[in-house]
Amino acid sequence: MIPARIIERKREGEAVEAGALRGFLHAYLRGEVPDYQMAAFLMAVYFRGLDETETDTLVSCMLESGEVLDLSYLDAPRVDKHSTGGVGDKISLVLAPLVASLGVYVPMMSGRGLGHTTGTLDKLEAIPGFRTALTLDEFRSVLERVGCAMIGQTAEIAPLDRRLYALRDVTGTVPVRALIAASIMSKKLAEGLTGLVLDVKVGEGAFMPEEDRALALAREMVRIGTARRLPTVALLTAMDRPLGCAVGNGLETAEAIRCLQGEGPEDLRALVLLEAAEMLLLAEGAQDDDPERRADALARAGDALDGGAALERFVRLVEAQGGDPAIVDDPDRLRSAPVRRVVEATCSGVVRRVRPRLLGEAVVELGGGRRRMDDPIDPRVGFELQVRPGDAVAVGAPLCTVHAASEADADLAEARVRSAIQVADEGAEGLRPLVSHRVDASGVRVLGDREGVATAG
Amino acid sequence: MIPARIIERKREGEAVEAGALRGFLHAYLRGEVPDYQMAAFLMAVYFRGLDETETDTLVSCMLESGEVLDLSYLDAPRVDKHSTGGVGDKISLVLAPLVASLGVYVPMMSGRGLGHTTGTLDKLEAIPGFRTALTLDEFRSVLERVGCAMIGQTAEIAPLDRRLYALRDVTGTVPVRALIAASIMSKKLAEGLTGLVLDVKVGEGAFMPEEDRALALAREMVRIGTARRLPTVALLTAMDRPLGCAVGNGLETAEAIRCLQGEGPEDLRALVLLEAAEMLLLAEGAQDDDPERRADALARAGDALDGGAALERFVRLVEAQGGDPAIVDDPDRLRSAPVRRVVEATCSGVVRRVRPRLLGEAVVELGGGRRRMDDPIDPRVGFELQVRPGDAVAVGAPLCTVHAASEADADLAEARVRSAIQVADEGAEGLRPLVSHRVDASGVRVLGDREGVATAG
Repeated sequence: MIPARIIERKREGEAVEAGALRGFLHAYLRGEVPDYQMAAFLMAVYFRGLDETETDTLVSCMLESGEVLDLSYLDAPRVDKHSTGGVGDKISLVLAPLVASLGVYVPMMSGRGLGHTTGTLDKLEAIPGFRTALTLDEFRSVLERVGCAMIGQTAEIAPLDRRLYALRDVTGTVPVRALIAASIMSKKLAEGLTGLVLDVKVGEGAFMPEEDRALALAREMVRIGTARRLPTVALLTAMDRPLGCAVGNGLETAEAIRCLQGEGPEDLRALVLLEAAEMLLLAEGAQDDDPERRADALARAGDALDGGAALERFVRLVEAQGGDPAIVDDPDRLRSAPVRRVVEATCSGVVRRVRPRLLGEAVVELGGGRRRMDDPIDPRVGFELQVRPGDAVAVGAPLCTVHAASEADADLAEARVRSAIQVADEGAEGLRPLVSHRVDASGVRVLGDREGVATAG
Repeated sequence: MIPARIIERKREGEAVEAGALRGFLHAYLRGEVPDYQMAAFLMAVYFRGLDETETDTLVSCMLESGEVLDLSYLDAPRVDKHSTGGVGDKISLVLAPLVASLGVYVPMMSGRGLGHTTGTLDKLEAIPGFRTALTLDEFRSVLERVGCAMIGQTAEIAPLDRRLYALRDVTGTVPVRALIAASIMSKKLAEGLTGLVLDVKVGEGAFMPEEDRALALAREMVRIGTARRLPTVALLTAMDRPLGCAVGNGLETAEAIRCLQGEGPEDLRALVLLEAAEMLLLAEGAQDDDPERRADALARAGDALDGGAALERFVRLVEAQGGDPAIVDDPDRLRSAPVRRVVEATCSGVVRRVRPRLLGEAVVELGGGRRRMDDPIDPRVGFELQVRPGDAVAVGAPLCTVHAASEADADLAEARVRSAIQVADEGAEGLRPLVSHRVDASGVRVLGDREGVATAG
């Protein structure tokens, strides 16, 4: 195994044989292949991709590099959900306790905000006292007691992925389908799951905005999971507008709590229920796509939200991980930025677009996101939208409330909001269905409006 | 200047603005941009190239990173020649003293063998005592006294190029036109020249075998030189067969000495004279391509070879750089490998091809080349060809003499020779003209047979 020859093979678009690739990756882990050779290899992969065999070899090496949880001693299925990241996506905070309340273990390892997106860990840490840096033993203990646990990737899990991710982040090699798929799936495969739901975002606010690329990523991840006997379902979900109304860590947590209380935005609730149903069906080993079973799963999930079971489980989770459960009775404590400014419409018309990426980037500018992995964040700042695409607005109508640390920040954010929320004479642009495709081992199903948009209502 | 953004811009095929690229390169020199970011950038450049502005910025930063010789105090023009590297290319050893004997300073910084090629420094060091690692002061001193001096790239010259070259060598990013052009030209521009001749090899034994790519490289280098007011001429020369008969460091030095004595292979002599004429015309500031002046320059160069002036200058050079000048009277001391084996034809016919790359790779196997920059080499080993493409051979006729360190090595080398020298019923494949194209600031001229092949006879 000569590292430069492996780099050259990939550069020329030739397949790297499994043994050679394995040797290259192991030598990297041992420090014998330096970062600069790996960086050149990753950039060659950006241009040439990895074939299925190469991707599988990478996933294997990532898994083998660390600990793989064995949760088979638990008395119920273990199902997790992973999102590729979007703007306003606070699904996990609602979904994990909801599904746990229905008797399915949810051992969830999440990430932090990156780029224009916020992350689950940051939202949880907006709750006073909440600890996401548990040891694996603590993680197992919370999972056993509460039915769900939410932590970050620990040092024990897939260290090869951690090192590669850190390198990709600073070498312009993040947006590569095979590398994203291997990174996500290696972590999820290490969780000791019996089922996995993937929420693959599509649209301007996603990391892979184009439908064809997002779909290819979804198929690749389902292929990897299936090949390793982890039943995996991927949903392509809309990220051509923010999910829900709140964007920014603490604001999103507050909105998630409202959702757990049976309130909150309709699209958030709809997507939570759709994903919960997928998780329940996976937990029950449902191979086919029986409409009755699906309707039943949706109904049970709805009951868990409306009946308070999900909220009760959330309170136990917060307590178990050191957070202050009183936040549930007073979520407005999460909306504590010193400056609030209502941005009003300056013309009448219809809201054509609400651009998620611009809002996400504005949150970073407000101090609520990261430019580098170790940047601190301000959980108070962000936006609460008062309008959705398609809404008619009059002059002076509130479009959005800016939450900022200072008046100067609010000035900048207001300008961003005015770019992001487009009001025009004509109607809204055609919006993506909330869920447009469902991918499982048997293939891709394009969902009709009834299953996609209509269920959002 | 955010390094990851610069990598991403290049990755996306967008131009990197001069100030940003300069900042990136300077930060690399200061150690603030690590090798892994530069490696990812270089691989992106492999796929996207550099435009002219970017290339010029790179050349500037390479030049500015080190010392630029000021030789303007010398009383005559300073002209150098650089070859992109081939098999059997011992031109420099003859050319530098020849041109110096005609009153033109030749301050030559050369390289070592790399890949399947041998290098000028290694050939010079085959001469007992010869020192190529002079300080810049010693270099100037030899140049003043002898009219030519031959050393390697010193630490003072273009350190950015040295660092980038070492990184490219291990990250699969060597064969990139803009990077090759910038690397060569930054070193040549640092030599304080008034003229430069580039020998760009084309054919199997060259690093850029295809004519279109070699021509593009030649044009790029001429463009860089011209833009910096260094009159530059490039010749595309044949590397579809070895140059001359000897391949291997000491053997090539011996052949160069024979050429200096007015003997030796015709193609070697012809190319030496053509390049000498170009150097003389540059030294005299000849802008046009006057056939009479060219014929006169060729004649003067021929006289210097045949009349002994070039040889006399070579002896002074060897003495000045610590070598044993007696080598000139007994060049067979350079042919001292313990095993000599004559490889004979096993069938009759015509020599169709003599494949330079196979012979060059075989020299590396014999110990006469490098796999890594710090490998030691055996200057004694190599090949002396007894046939050229187009020669008719009978069974048992000598094709080549192998010079090896052991019988086992000779066995392997014999097998390589039999692959490299193809004897067949049909005649030789069409050979490239010795010089096929001439590139200068005014454009590209395709040379006819009279100027190209015929002058080789």
